Amino acid sequence: MDAITAHHSTALLTDRYELTMLQAALRSGAAHRRSVFEVFTRRLPNGRRYGVVAGTGRLLDAIENFRFTGAQLDWLGDQGVVEEDTLEYLANYRFTGDVHGYPEGEVYFPGSPILTVEGSFAEAVILETVILSVLNHDSAIAAAASRMTSAAGDRPCIEMGARRAHESGAVAAARAAYIAGFTATSDLEAGYTYGIPTAGTAAHAFTLLHDSERDAFTAQVESMGRGTTLLVDTYDLAEAVRTAVEVAGPTLGAVRIDSGDLTLLAHRVRRQLDELGAEKTRIIVTSDLDEYAIAALAAAPVDGYGVGTSLVTGSGHPTCAMVYKLVARATTPDGPLVSVAKRSAGGKTSVGGRKWAARRPDADGVAEAEVVGTGPVPEALAPHLLHVPLVTGGEVVGREPLTAARERHKRARAALPLSATQLSKGEPVLATELLTS
Amino acid sequence: MDAITAHHSTALLTDRYELTMLQAALRSGAAHRRSVFEVFTRRLPNGRRYGVVAGTGRLLDAIENFRFTGAQLDWLGDQGVVEEDTLEYLANYRFTGDVHGYPEGEVYFPGSPILTVEGSFAEAVILETVILSVLNHDSAIAAAASRMTSAAGDRPCIEMGARRAHESGAVAAARAAYIAGFTATSDLEAGYTYGIPTAGTAAHAFTLLHDSERDAFTAQVESMGRGTTLLVDTYDLAEAVRTAVEVAGPTLGAVRIDSGDLTLLAHRVRRQLDELGAEKTRIIVTSDLDEYAIAALAAAPVDGYGVGTSLVTGSGHPTCAMVYKLVARATTPDGPLVSVAKRSAGGKTSVGGRKWAARRPDADGVAEAEVVGTGPVPEALAPHLLHVPLVTGGEVVGREPLTAARERHKRARAALPLSATQLSKGEPVLATELLTS
Repeated sequence: MDAITAHHSTALLTDRYELTMLQAALRSGAAHRRSVFEVFTRRLPNGRRYGVVAGTGRLLDAIENFRFTGAQLDWLGDQGVVEEDTLEYLANYRFTGDVHGYPEGEVYFPGSPILTVEGSFAEAVILETVILSVLNHDSAIAAAASRMTSAAGDRPCIEMGARRAHESGAVAAARAAYIAGFTATSDLEAGYTYGIPTAGTAAHAFTLLHDSERDAFTAQVESMGRGTTLLVDTYDLAEAVRTAVEVAGPTLGAVRIDSGDLTLLAHRVRRQLDELGAEKTRIIVTSDLDEYAIAALAAAPVDGYGVGTSLVTGSGHPTCAMVYKLVARATTPDGPLVSVAKRSAGGKTSVGGRKWAARRPDADGVAEAEVVGTGPVPEALAPHLLHVPLVTGGEVVGREPLTAARERHKRARAALPLSATQLSKGEPVLATELLTS
Repeated sequence: MDAITAHHSTALLTDRYELTMLQAALRSGAAHRRSVFEVFTRRLPNGRRYGVVAGTGRLLDAIENFRFTGAQLDWLGDQGVVEEDTLEYLANYRFTGDVHGYPEGEVYFPGSPILTVEGSFAEAVILETVILSVLNHDSAIAAAASRMTSAAGDRPCIEMGARRAHESGAVAAARAAYIAGFTATSDLEAGYTYGIPTAGTAAHAFTLLHDSERDAFTAQVESMGRGTTLLVDTYDLAEAVRTAVEVAGPTLGAVRIDSGDLTLLAHRVRRQLDELGAEKTRIIVTSDLDEYAIAALAAAPVDGYGVGTSLVTGSGHPTCAMVYKLVARATTPDGPLVSVAKRSAGGKTSVGGRKWAARRPDADGVAEAEVVGTGPVPEALAPHLLHVPLVTGGEVVGREPLTAARERHKRARAALPLSATQLSKGEPVLATELLTS
């Protein structure tokens, strides 16, 4: 749990129209109709082969903390956002419904019913914004991170993007990156809040602060030991590598290169380190890396990647296009559900009905289709259903350690067809088949 | 002040390497050298004509709340991030230095010294990440927002992007958008925290919940009055407009169109509303708008724009490339400052020295150059200096109402050459001239 994001009311992380809809529905009586909302996306970012669900754990905290404080209610009243009867409803608000969804770390495709929220219209409609904020942000980061860790193969990726993202968004980004295979983060709050391993040693400022590079390296090694990582591109790279090994000895942990032609420089530095007897000193590269740059460095003697801007901005796609749509509702609080869907000519149509989803494997166990249905589940698909219960009768039941999501992502990605991890643009690697009853 | 972002310690919103540098510098004795760090950017996003400083107010809160709690210190010790002497330093940490910078809402260019942080190396180096997080995020949003409000002219822009951004990032985004001329936000937390006007009435779910569109419109008008905005594209647009005016009468406040060819539909709906006698009913459009779509709608009968995804993701540029670099330091706690700068071959070089900045106007008062210097200020430029004091001797002195930043942005943008607000790609509208002593 996080002092910044989880110990506090999430109730105002809400678009105003949710509360005005609530008020109008309380008046019309429709607020108590049993309703099913679905989170899905109509498309993946252009050219991407798969999406990655992330944020689920944070989302469960957000639902649990969705309670209005007295000060918030006073403000809503003062501002005339809603009137007395609605304020009373909000004062007692507590989500009592059910949430099912794809578990965190799972992959998804256009039309995948990523999350299903069921309850009265009143209690479910006002969760829209916070649910989408969390899932759209975290899943965008995880999707980018997954491409990077896939491109990096066995070499570790370290998340270093905090400075290029909103300060709380950065913490969530580190979490999403960890789920998608990153091994560590520079962000201490992410370590503190989520137990993600943290990493980092020194910046150029540290070298510039001292009277010489040698003074700086000496200070760093004295403080952090010979296993530290020395940053070698403040002045002359070859001289810095020589100084680094002189100061730390051949058991120096690593050097970091943060600028220039990284392929060329990695080869040059590797040769120099080997000549100096520092065969085990690793080479870490940073400097505006993305999945393409990581892939391009595959043949270079690099031992780890530090990734910043590109990770926290979703490598060109900083958000997902997930939406939260009413897909079914009863005409009484307990009546049978009726499918509903927008059907204007504008193109933003959706498929009504409460849905299940399964990932159908072929004979070799490789995923071959995402099957989404509104009727009974075909027997052959029953073992491959994707939804898990997350909230039951208002109680969070879907919490799990972050490592479980991390392991799940690894498995889910590995079960996709090989073309899933191609970096070139293409269609989603699985087609979504719709079975309507 | 905001329960989520401001009442809490910001001290761990920090990259680990800042604390390890601190420890090593405490050991070498260099930690107490007087130091000057500068925030600047080497480039604007590709094709952009100007940048917009935003986040300053949040930044001042972050500096003020940069205090380590006992639990945080215990964790840092347990994790071996730093050792006892450093933990002691952190336990007593409080920034005692000075911060000057471009005031919030001001525009900036490559090389503009956006923020200058001066103090001991120790106290200044550990603010790097949180300062950059806030400025890089908020300024990216403000830059996009400024292009949108410029394209919209006198028509209001409403920020509706919360669902597509990290939930706390969204609150900051609403704030940045307001500074850059947006008139309202959908995000209640942004209203609660920053006093930004909020807006919103209903989504498609509200129509789908009811047994008919007429039932839904009736419920909404009964709850919110005839001045409300009815969403008219759930089923058939023309029928919805007819029903809307029947239900609310000709004094209906507005209709909202959220899909389809907005130019075409706006003309069609305007004609229909006028025929129905609802000449004053406004037309609000939403649906993946960005500055280009807004500009394209200039000739359409539209009365307001709701902007979501594109705003909160910086319209293609979700972060800025601002960096935090040591540009000068003394060799004693109080000695004279010596300029320092990275000078490797990698291209990421910077200009050393503590800087001033002025925007030089031409004879007509139109800005003609951004002048940045390290020596004495030429007399003619003295009235045009850009820096203001933000923190003096550790005390925040630069707080101001959000409306002051909003007014400043309007003035600053208006004083730029006309080509500043062209949407086509181009060079920064002002060149930065460097005067070194």
